Amino acid sequence: MTRVEVEYCVPCGMLNRANDVARAVLEQFGEGVEEVALVTGDDGIFIVRVDGEVVFDKTEDDYDVDAIVRAVKPHVGAAA
Amino acid sequence: MTRVEVEYCVPCGMLNRANDVARAVLEQFGEGVEEVALVTGDDGIFIVRVDGEVVFDKTEDDYDVDAIVRAVKPHVGAAA
Repeated sequence: MTRVEVEYCVPCGMLNRANDVARAVLEQFGEGVEEVALVTGDDGIFIVRVDGEVVFDKTEDDYDVDAIVRAVKPHVGAAA
Repeated sequence: MTRVEVEYCVPCGMLNRANDVARAVLEQFGEGVEEVALVTGDDGIFIVRVDGEVVFDKTEDDYDVDAIVRAVKPHVGAAA
């Protein structure tokens, strides 16, 4: 089963953004994913991983919740 | 480091409630916890675990976000 991680910079105040991603993934896939983990970090980090594979890194990608959800989709089982 | 799990019933529509708990824990403790995982489940489940220990189970406890945050606190490092 799929684990999605959203690692975000706590001192930068990125909780809202991380939370938006978690919600969007869970609303879209529900039990198609096993869990979405909000992982605390610092130093400006904002990375989304699916089963360990980076699907979004704010240093390389433009922030777009829908694009992140689309990037998760291929990792989700037939239940989605 | 501390892992908090919020396992919730997807078909029951408990995502909002699970999300509220995750946010409250992260707002309170930030990097004092390593991660808060929203774990998908069914069959009416709503359980919060801290490092594997159940601190809230809706079949036994009244739902109270503040009480859940207080139950997490002893598990959080000195950073909190």
